Amino acid sequence: MIQLRRALFEPRRIALVGASSDPSRLTARAQIYLRKHGFAGDILPVHPREAEVLGERAYPSVADIPGTVDFAYILLNTPQVEGAVEAVAAKGVPAACVLADGFAEAGPDGAALQARLVAAARGAGLRLLGPNSMGVVNLNARIACSVNAALEADELPAGRLALVSQSGSMMGALMSRGAARGIGFSHLVGTGNEADLSAAEVAALLVDDPQVDAILLFLEAIRRPELFAGLARQAHAAGKPVVAYKLGRSPYGAELAASHTGALAGTDAAADAFFRRLGIARAHTLEGLLELPALLVGRTPLPRPRRAAGVMTTTGGGGAMAVDCLGVAGVEARPPDAAAAAALDAAGFPQHGGRLLDVTLAGTKPERVASALGALLAAEDTDLALAVIGSSAQFRPGDSVEGIVRAHDAARAAGNPKPVSAFLVPQADQSLRLLAEAGIAAFRTPESAADCVRAWCEWCMPREVAPAEPFSHGLPERPDEADARRLLAALGLPSGFAVLRSPDDDPGGISWPVALKILSPDLAHKTELGGVRLGIADAAALKREAEAMRERVARAAPDARLTGFLVQPMARGLGEAIIGFRRDPEVGPVVMLGTGGVLAELFRDVSLRPAPVGMEEAREMVAEVKGLRALAGWRGLPRGDLEAVARAVACLSRLAASGDVAEAEVNPAIIGPEGAGITVADAWAVHA
Amino acid sequence: MIQLRRALFEPRRIALVGASSDPSRLTARAQIYLRKHGFAGDILPVHPREAEVLGERAYPSVADIPGTVDFAYILLNTPQVEGAVEAVAAKGVPAACVLADGFAEAGPDGAALQARLVAAARGAGLRLLGPNSMGVVNLNARIACSVNAALEADELPAGRLALVSQSGSMMGALMSRGAARGIGFSHLVGTGNEADLSAAEVAALLVDDPQVDAILLFLEAIRRPELFAGLARQAHAAGKPVVAYKLGRSPYGAELAASHTGALAGTDAAADAFFRRLGIARAHTLEGLLELPALLVGRTPLPRPRRAAGVMTTTGGGGAMAVDCLGVAGVEARPPDAAAAAALDAAGFPQHGGRLLDVTLAGTKPERVASALGALLAAEDTDLALAVIGSSAQFRPGDSVEGIVRAHDAARAAGNPKPVSAFLVPQADQSLRLLAEAGIAAFRTPESAADCVRAWCEWCMPREVAPAEPFSHGLPERPDEADARRLLAALGLPSGFAVLRSPDDDPGGISWPVALKILSPDLAHKTELGGVRLGIADAAALKREAEAMRERVARAAPDARLTGFLVQPMARGLGEAIIGFRRDPEVGPVVMLGTGGVLAELFRDVSLRPAPVGMEEAREMVAEVKGLRALAGWRGLPRGDLEAVARAVACLSRLAASGDVAEAEVNPAIIGPEGAGITVADAWAVHA
Repeated sequence: MIQLRRALFEPRRIALVGASSDPSRLTARAQIYLRKHGFAGDILPVHPREAEVLGERAYPSVADIPGTVDFAYILLNTPQVEGAVEAVAAKGVPAACVLADGFAEAGPDGAALQARLVAAARGAGLRLLGPNSMGVVNLNARIACSVNAALEADELPAGRLALVSQSGSMMGALMSRGAARGIGFSHLVGTGNEADLSAAEVAALLVDDPQVDAILLFLEAIRRPELFAGLARQAHAAGKPVVAYKLGRSPYGAELAASHTGALAGTDAAADAFFRRLGIARAHTLEGLLELPALLVGRTPLPRPRRAAGVMTTTGGGGAMAVDCLGVAGVEARPPDAAAAAALDAAGFPQHGGRLLDVTLAGTKPERVASALGALLAAEDTDLALAVIGSSAQFRPGDSVEGIVRAHDAARAAGNPKPVSAFLVPQADQSLRLLAEAGIAAFRTPESAADCVRAWCEWCMPREVAPAEPFSHGLPERPDEADARRLLAALGLPSGFAVLRSPDDDPGGISWPVALKILSPDLAHKTELGGVRLGIADAAALKREAEAMRERVARAAPDARLTGFLVQPMARGLGEAIIGFRRDPEVGPVVMLGTGGVLAELFRDVSLRPAPVGMEEAREMVAEVKGLRALAGWRGLPRGDLEAVARAVACLSRLAASGDVAEAEVNPAIIGPEGAGITVADAWAVHA
Repeated sequence: MIQLRRALFEPRRIALVGASSDPSRLTARAQIYLRKHGFAGDILPVHPREAEVLGERAYPSVADIPGTVDFAYILLNTPQVEGAVEAVAAKGVPAACVLADGFAEAGPDGAALQARLVAAARGAGLRLLGPNSMGVVNLNARIACSVNAALEADELPAGRLALVSQSGSMMGALMSRGAARGIGFSHLVGTGNEADLSAAEVAALLVDDPQVDAILLFLEAIRRPELFAGLARQAHAAGKPVVAYKLGRSPYGAELAASHTGALAGTDAAADAFFRRLGIARAHTLEGLLELPALLVGRTPLPRPRRAAGVMTTTGGGGAMAVDCLGVAGVEARPPDAAAAAALDAAGFPQHGGRLLDVTLAGTKPERVASALGALLAAEDTDLALAVIGSSAQFRPGDSVEGIVRAHDAARAAGNPKPVSAFLVPQADQSLRLLAEAGIAAFRTPESAADCVRAWCEWCMPREVAPAEPFSHGLPERPDEADARRLLAALGLPSGFAVLRSPDDDPGGISWPVALKILSPDLAHKTELGGVRLGIADAAALKREAEAMRERVARAAPDARLTGFLVQPMARGLGEAIIGFRRDPEVGPVVMLGTGGVLAELFRDVSLRPAPVGMEEAREMVAEVKGLRALAGWRGLPRGDLEAVARAVACLSRLAASGDVAEAEVNPAIIGPEGAGITVADAWAVHA
């Protein structure tokens, strides 16, 4: 790992395979940028014909380069890449990067070619960045080994944020947006298609770098989810926050990210739950990705965040706007509690009843701003203090920032775990820069302010989850409902039912009335085929109904194998839930809970977690499903057995341990009154 | 009106009542800024003791000023304002502005004081801006009659947007944010508390100004809603879009805006429906307020917007991000339809299957960008074209903007009603400026891009709604349910019921089984008191139940007047709706439709419109309520009589014509199968 880290981030000898001697070509850029930004090591262009490329001695092949090579950037066209990777591997280079696209994102042929690159590299111990990667930049070491046009800039001030981005162009966009306001980067790495090295693995290489304060991820897809857990633990241990912006919040974006990266798209809710499980903060706004790190750096997640802020302002309208946007993001600007009120009284702010402390009258001098923020930080029921600054931020940057810096420094010195932050209402570039220099989170828009404050309130430690205990079961390749119910029973979620192989079979000691369903591994929609009958009163009626059903279904679906009948007691309850297990294409096994019934589906009212979950998390899921609040004592309605729902969720989530179950679902689970448990009314499972 | 317009925007002689000779004082600023920015008329400071204020001849009182005064800015402290308004009114000044706060927003005493100001002014024909107003700026006429610190700037380039803002500080914030990217203002007006002149009235004065292209409103509250309709009609007739940013999207923001302005807060859904009814475009992001006008200026709303965009990009990652953000805002980036595909083929873009046209390979030269955008504009199923530009926007602004400008000009020349717009992914100030100069909507963040595109897709002509027809009814001061049902019947929404004055009364030809309810103007919660019994089979049972109910309720609520019993047939249906009429504190009468039942309340699934509505709008409301989709043929479920639901909504909305009904509600309305109508299961009304 040390060797890989050095090869990627501190290479001394870089081969540029396919370097161009025409400076207007994309493939000439890496060489130009390396020189331009002061690379002190050896640049080794590989060119089949030229003896010299842009002033550097060139080599006809990688093999011809004398001595070792630390890093190779392969700039050749797609069809030539495989041969180049083989040559680089044969040379014993520890790491290489492939610029070309046209691999996994281009279809099956590209995917096969990409797999061959990885195989060729792996055999020789060569690690690959890309394909479709814009390269690696280490600004502290002045290594700009990238074709990103952002490196046209004459100055590339180094900062303390590392960026790992699947999108190469976003490297430049974020660098330029940061530079304009004094937020600088230490490293920028394009991981492209992530055939070998993925964002999480690259990020993990950067966590312990003393020049890195935080790691930013720009993701189109989550690949190698298993590597994120290690990254998250390592990052939290090192006190280096990981902040992610991920595409796929809308279905169109997800579809596009999938086609753009050659990955299958999972659901955004799964990605969200995944990040939260790992304590990776997620920005929903582009500028939030730049603004959020300063809220987190040097801090640990609050143990019991309140989703609440103490807000002061020097501008009534701007302050009200910030409070409004916080509210839209689910964060309450809270009036001072007793502790904060006492501190405000002591600091000479007598008027502090509301959600917004307007200091315009009391004075906006630095010491006043500092003491107002300090007093707000004394609150026991908020997660941070936000200063909303008006025109002074534009015309008197020094003054307007000073109070915020003082409050920030005082809070740090006092060990207050809550941040001081600022939203500047006018255009105020200089103030943004001063705040960035002081390490204070500063926001350019009320929307990014709200986004970052929300993300801070949601930030948590990576959650340690016991691995799912294995369990024994034998799910057939094409399970019917009885098989699914046996699987549920093996997971600890039994349901009363009988299987009749023929209408003449005896259902045994079942309680009447019952429901009757046809059993078939081939029929997904039993109801439409007349394969379900409810409320059957006794054994005679059951026999009659079963005979008629067999005939009816056989006629409607002549090719379906009919394996018998399922008989289950009719159940009544206070409500319904849907509990499901899936394997998300991006993040892997997830468990899902939603309200049952038609409306719930229309409202997409579900809670989701990476599986498995323990009871604590399962209870959190129950609390997150809006529709289930109707069973939690809402408006005096009778309470349902939500504890049993949580237990069922935890049971189903154990399927994470079983590689041969792809999906399973209880839909609906009928929720009885408190203590009466739930009834599995219908269930299905899919073999992997 | 011409006189008022001249007094506010082209005054020649301005009195500054309470001007200070200490240049560090807030009250000195208006004089300093007027001079600094080149006011060519007479500045007339009023000061009780000084003969000269900051180099101008001063007058001991307004009465002492020789000749006429066009406009007076009253800079005095709150207690002195009333006298000053009287003096200004006595002088015959047509318009004045009050800086001080501490009026309606400060409580009942302040509200009373504010009412006295208005009375004093009105008697003399004096119109008032404020109190709590930052004044008036007309940049074309170089009149900076304001204390806003943004006027510290040495240069105030004039532009073509007029801003009317209830918040004074936001005037400066928006001006500075605009100036940084070449978006300039013609006028900036602070309307503050709007004791007399409200935002809509001031905006209407600006619509016909040839130096104004569009009007921006920054609103904390909607006051004088009736004036907005005129503004909207006038603005659309003049081709001058009105764009609003309004606080109150979150409950905390609404609470704060209310306390900040002294107004009662309405619901945000009502404000949203109000703006949409009037064809006022609403920005949800702060920068969207600046960016949105260029999408609308010179255009009329599309007759059938698709909420769809054609998107091209020079940067894959940035383009995917834009598509994702559009999707989050409910706008689909749509693959080229046949027309666009043909145009793309003809223009030499063979690869155009997806939601994002990536021109990186085909070339990003201006003529290529122009032809790609032109081809996308040919689509018949999109509302606009969006260019997402990468690093070229940063490093080659001229080039990168040229193609967009060409496409824009060509579309204008061809009379294409759809805009060309651009989102710049890196920091690209110069490109933003060039696009602003060319009159092209350019977006700085993907979120504001999505916000503005959404607003464009939702923009519509002001909707002409026939006034509600009067109807005759007689709602008692304290209506019971029978009164409410009679009111509904008068509106055209009859329900079958009988009223029994005693248990011995005959319910007449009602169909059994029935429901029985106690009637009382004093009881809101009948069920909890045992005042409701369902499923009564016959007359004998009814008498028995009524006797028991009277006794039970009288015991539980001994002080309630019991006026009899309501008997109604039991109804079954496919679903439930809630239909309500309210008077919103901001926008006035509104009609509301939601799904009924417990879940619907948890999901806040409602559609809302200003009342009255016709059938067309009522049907739109039905379509907007998610839960009702279950009755619209969803998943093969039986269809409910949604046409009857729409009719009921239109009926209830007629209450707008009746000043004596404050609220009325049908909850639930039981929805029968198609053609079977709805049944009023419960109803209530509140006298105004």
